[in-house]
Amino acid sequence: MPSPKVTSTEELLSSDAKWISLQKINYTDEDGKPRVWECAERKTRGKSGIDAVAILAILRSKTNAFPLSTVIIEQYRPPIDKGETPEDAAIRELEEETGYKAEGVTESSPIVVCDPGMTNANMKLVVVSVSLEDKLETPDSKLDEGEHIVKRIVPLDKLNDELKGEALISVHQGFVVDARLSYFASGYEMAQRIRNGKFD
Amino acid sequence: MPSPKVTSTEELLSSDAKWISLQKINYTDEDGKPRVWECAERKTRGKSGIDAVAILAILRSKTNAFPLSTVIIEQYRPPIDKGETPEDAAIRELEEETGYKAEGVTESSPIVVCDPGMTNANMKLVVVSVSLEDKLETPDSKLDEGEHIVKRIVPLDKLNDELKGEALISVHQGFVVDARLSYFASGYEMAQRIRNGKFD
Repeated sequence: MPSPKVTSTEELLSSDAKWISLQKINYTDEDGKPRVWECAERKTRGKSGIDAVAILAILRSKTNAFPLSTVIIEQYRPPIDKGETPEDAAIRELEEETGYKAEGVTESSPIVVCDPGMTNANMKLVVVSVSLEDKLETPDSKLDEGEHIVKRIVPLDKLNDELKGEALISVHQGFVVDARLSYFASGYEMAQRIRNGKFD
Repeated sequence: MPSPKVTSTEELLSSDAKWISLQKINYTDEDGKPRVWECAERKTRGKSGIDAVAILAILRSKTNAFPLSTVIIEQYRPPIDKGETPEDAAIRELEEETGYKAEGVTESSPIVVCDPGMTNANMKLVVVSVSLEDKLETPDSKLDEGEHIVKRIVPLDKLNDELKGEALISVHQGFVVDARLSYFASGYEMAQRIRNGKFD
């Protein structure tokens, strides 16, 4: 299978853009001084008011046959379908993109913003739990035509190291690591280091 | 002091935008099929190749007089100055925005991307360490004119609860919680819950 490849990049006129637009926000600051902020926004936000849902799947063995793990993928754009809650979308998309069936939602974050200085994009993080009988099964994904998703299982306490290695080699391969996944992994690792007295 | 207030919002033409632009990326996918991606990009990326640096300051007492804590602020846009490393920028901006002097960098993440489906914005997370003699001092910030930053000290193991509460009330006050901070807090809390056997 050939690798995806950028053939050209060009400046896009607002009038030609289908999915995103530029907005100019006029506001007055704390001193009453008029100021201007430029930002980008998606044209696709639906009734849910939420642009995207992030899914964190915790894979665990009923017999402790493997350490608590998660599944990371190399392409990611889970939309929320019409009339669906973010939690339903998380469970549906997890199964489509990785084949894992979650038995429930462990946690659902408030709505948070991705890069507030630049866009109005928002999202929710939904943590779901997948119990496996014994060994770490890797079911088939249920991808749409044109979807090309590589998945990888990683133990939670190796996630930060794995992503750091990934980020270092990825530049050469055209891949980049998502900041949000990276921050989750940093927080997880920091709690462990503090617990183990290894934080200096 | 009056609250900042949006006075109007209007669609911005690409030709009028000073800080961001829209780009059209033409690429071929894994099947060799031509496809188009629309994204926003900053016009301001400098030689460092990094749009922003996020700072996580760990406050700790030399005498264990208070629990490991961090400082969160209500406005955040730390740029990297010319000729500066992201690590230098983190230490400089922490002092300007909160008054705390970091004695060193604990961790510096690889370059990660903020919202890859929508923009090319990237960043680094820099974790710095601040040792305080005894009690939790709150030094004065060194803000530029026009900067209005409210800061708050939060123990690390209460960060996720604090942000969730914040996110719930913030909608009414025009504040939003940054996804990256929220993910760090989720990861931290999850490691603790798993350690304490409270993860179901």
